[in-house]
Amino acid sequence: MRTSQSLLQLVCRAPYKRTFLRNFKLITFNIQQRNYASLENETVKTAEIHKNESSKAINYTTDIYTHLKRNPNFKELSPDDIKFFQSILSPSELIVDNGNNQDDLIPYNTDWMKKYRGKSKLVAKPKTVAQISKLVKYCNEKRLAIVPQGGNTGLVGGSVPVFDEIVISTNNLNRIRSFDPISGNLVCDSGCILEALDNYLAEQGYMIPLDLGAKGSCHIGGNVATNAGGIRLLRYGSLHGTVLGLEVVLPDGTILDNLSTLRKDNTGYDIKHLFIGSEGTLGIITGVSILTPKRPKSVNVAVFCLNSFQNVQEAFIISKEELSEILSAFEFWDINALKLVKNHLVQGANFPLDDKYPFYVLVETSGSNKDHNEEGVVKDGVVAQDNTQIQNLWAIREGIPEAGIEETSNRFKDAGIFGKDKLVTDVFGFGHIGDGNIHLNIVAKSYSPEVAKLTEPYVYEWTEKHKGSISAEHGLGLMKAGCIGYSKSQKMINMMKQIKQSIDPIGIMNPYNKTIQTPAIEKRVADAYIGTIKFIDRRLPVITGAITPVL
Amino acid sequence: MRTSQSLLQLVCRAPYKRTFLRNFKLITFNIQQRNYASLENETVKTAEIHKNESSKAINYTTDIYTHLKRNPNFKELSPDDIKFFQSILSPSELIVDNGNNQDDLIPYNTDWMKKYRGKSKLVAKPKTVAQISKLVKYCNEKRLAIVPQGGNTGLVGGSVPVFDEIVISTNNLNRIRSFDPISGNLVCDSGCILEALDNYLAEQGYMIPLDLGAKGSCHIGGNVATNAGGIRLLRYGSLHGTVLGLEVVLPDGTILDNLSTLRKDNTGYDIKHLFIGSEGTLGIITGVSILTPKRPKSVNVAVFCLNSFQNVQEAFIISKEELSEILSAFEFWDINALKLVKNHLVQGANFPLDDKYPFYVLVETSGSNKDHNEEGVVKDGVVAQDNTQIQNLWAIREGIPEAGIEETSNRFKDAGIFGKDKLVTDVFGFGHIGDGNIHLNIVAKSYSPEVAKLTEPYVYEWTEKHKGSISAEHGLGLMKAGCIGYSKSQKMINMMKQIKQSIDPIGIMNPYNKTIQTPAIEKRVADAYIGTIKFIDRRLPVITGAITPVL
Repeated sequence: MRTSQSLLQLVCRAPYKRTFLRNFKLITFNIQQRNYASLENETVKTAEIHKNESSKAINYTTDIYTHLKRNPNFKELSPDDIKFFQSILSPSELIVDNGNNQDDLIPYNTDWMKKYRGKSKLVAKPKTVAQISKLVKYCNEKRLAIVPQGGNTGLVGGSVPVFDEIVISTNNLNRIRSFDPISGNLVCDSGCILEALDNYLAEQGYMIPLDLGAKGSCHIGGNVATNAGGIRLLRYGSLHGTVLGLEVVLPDGTILDNLSTLRKDNTGYDIKHLFIGSEGTLGIITGVSILTPKRPKSVNVAVFCLNSFQNVQEAFIISKEELSEILSAFEFWDINALKLVKNHLVQGANFPLDDKYPFYVLVETSGSNKDHNEEGVVKDGVVAQDNTQIQNLWAIREGIPEAGIEETSNRFKDAGIFGKDKLVTDVFGFGHIGDGNIHLNIVAKSYSPEVAKLTEPYVYEWTEKHKGSISAEHGLGLMKAGCIGYSKSQKMINMMKQIKQSIDPIGIMNPYNKTIQTPAIEKRVADAYIGTIKFIDRRLPVITGAITPVL
Repeated sequence: MRTSQSLLQLVCRAPYKRTFLRNFKLITFNIQQRNYASLENETVKTAEIHKNESSKAINYTTDIYTHLKRNPNFKELSPDDIKFFQSILSPSELIVDNGNNQDDLIPYNTDWMKKYRGKSKLVAKPKTVAQISKLVKYCNEKRLAIVPQGGNTGLVGGSVPVFDEIVISTNNLNRIRSFDPISGNLVCDSGCILEALDNYLAEQGYMIPLDLGAKGSCHIGGNVATNAGGIRLLRYGSLHGTVLGLEVVLPDGTILDNLSTLRKDNTGYDIKHLFIGSEGTLGIITGVSILTPKRPKSVNVAVFCLNSFQNVQEAFIISKEELSEILSAFEFWDINALKLVKNHLVQGANFPLDDKYPFYVLVETSGSNKDHNEEGVVKDGVVAQDNTQIQNLWAIREGIPEAGIEETSNRFKDAGIFGKDKLVTDVFGFGHIGDGNIHLNIVAKSYSPEVAKLTEPYVYEWTEKHKGSISAEHGLGLMKAGCIGYSKSQKMINMMKQIKQSIDPIGIMNPYNKTIQTPAIEKRVADAYIGTIKFIDRRLPVITGAITPVL
């Protein structure tokens, strides 16, 4: 119990510690800062390994999504078009299919999970916004379709072409334009890598209010285009709150300069929000202005092992109640997730957690204050308040998130395909309880239509039934292009189409991405490799999940 | 010095205290919590008094804004129209001009500053969203113009008619629909009064992440429609970050149900942001879903008197550095503002501040922790970091916000109209340094074209020159309908017009409000009674201000 107490001391304040010890039979481990991102990070690493298996042949998206038809209104690339691109871009900024340079094009035609493969014959990597403006204007006039591409770390096929769309990559657009050490306003090109920005800010005592597994490769522009969530959302909120301004090249080539650094500006509609989460369908984000928070001077992290998911939820309530403004992350995973990490990813080495307990939560506190311990000044009222909260919680039992994970695995058990030597070897959950967002992972030996059939539309239907979102973090992309109807009403979708029509009338921007561009909102089922789902309980955090390929 | 120390103890931590004492010759006063809102509150109270002076005749807006012409495309109210409204609304929900009930219509035709007066002959006060949908659909078909109205506490004439627009008031739309004590999600009708919501939440240990002077009268729907800022923005961010969903009746009568309570949802464009700050020009907000924070258990407030505006800026940097996540407000006012409050508003009674010092800042800290004092665990590194910050600050002298206030008063001095018995008796500043947002107030004996000419477009031009916003908090309304060009590019304005055209093709919604509806973006000068301006320094907080009528 000493371990547990000293650790609680580390993370938190006396009332928190007391309520914790009173309510939970738990053992605690310390884990050094940021390690907890390991699940997400390792998933990325695994995918990277995956990526480098040159042995694995990648199917063309059109071979899997046979219902997709190339839009005949789009022009095919001609020698004159190539000449134009050559007139704007230097040889190093341009890749054109010459029959024997497939390897150069593959990284831009395929996603990093090797699930999608397009047939683009031209990749542009401009260094300036002016170049992008000229290229897009030309494409719009000639009806050449475009796919904007950042770090290409997306999970839903939103950043790779399907047919012969031209790829415009922000790889060469990576300048930090300005940083104000007093207000914390950062203005940079959209091609800056998230981790590079965070390292730059660290030197100035600031941080990027966003952290996710792919941070070493993803571009800030792609983060904004997909409204990426990640680990810091609980504390710093979504990009709709932190992004102060955007520079966007519109489909007609117009450079929309909205790189404001003002925290308050009520002159007209706040256009930038349309582009946050638009997945490249309304324009190409070329510049980002973002408000960055002070880097915390004091960060404490602890992992608790808990005996039930009920405990996980109670722990979250108590943490919110007692840690409030210093609570910066509340992450969760179950024993199966842990086993997976230990056995498949880190080979059990230097991984401090024992896998004896069904549930694990990680609590991170961060702030400018070195010591948040307030031993001796506890008020009884505080504790009383927790109890009320906890009783509220006990009162509602139906529909708790873990049930979603349980029910999903039961479906596989009932079908007799779940087990050590069966099609599905593991079903586990992990993620961001603090944001009401948990990943459900299904580990399968290999892709199988049977697993797909059992998984979807089942999970989407559950999501709809519980008023959740079929995409909390990863966007719709191509994968869920037909599934928006599970989470948005036809009226909402009509309005999105109106906006798309008004800003991109010819429809050249990322044309096969997002439902709002598909003729009908028929509830098409995406392939079962990765699907993002969100179960919701009226009162409890929501779950989303990714169904991952075998690791 | 003991006072000062004990007060600093109250507000903050040891390093903050030390840096403060080292850097400033100051005297501190304690002031009970929330009193600091008095400047804003008193302004409101004064306006209320104003309002009740039935003696004062109110000019019609069209008598002052002679350039405004009624849009001939709009139909005039006919007996058949009135019959239709009577078929949808009960007598208590409808006010129709019958020749001798002007007094009933005046509160809806005039703003509370008595600057604007419209000529509406019909006020609808529906109780249900279904009623609003039917009314709006009818108006759209018949081309009857509409002005949506909430608490009608706006400062820029955005919530009152100009000609004979129909007023649809949310006064009767005031139900709390649901509150989740675990996540803090509140869903309510748009007509709920801000203070009533906050009182309701207080019972549950939560609070509305928004606080402003008009909270006793303003509606949450109006707050969202104008993207109100206020005192809490520094800590809880803007409504774009806290509003989770909206229910909106579109100009064609469609009820757009986007009352999500999800913190993360990336399915399609995030439409709700278009309506946040749209000032009733895209539809009528009928429901709001908002994420509310835990009510802090511990709130400390202190006021410091400082000897220069330079000190005010240093104090802000140190406060951000040392108080970080517990800093919930950093408010500023100058001696003239203080004198005004003492002499005109609170008759010097129970007002704890002495007016011997040129500048005053209020620092509020709030958190879940009773005592943030960390005497004894100070790290030198921390202090060193402040010094760097402060040196950075010393390095930039040009364009500091106060200069804007000084230069403005100098303009009046040079013109010989500034002084005790002159046209302009006072020029002072107060506001939200923490958000980069300060109010500049000019006190005039009465409205005078001379004051107007000296004030505008001068302040707008300064704002433009310093890349500020001509409206940080109050929107454009009618007053600044022609001035958006000072803060937004023609490209941005064109896009806004596209969106307006796409959502409200007939243009019935609040038709004389916001520039995006005016034919040209000519830089028309608004009248000088109230203008919101924002000076900006590349590195320092931005200033906005209101030029108030004589108090």
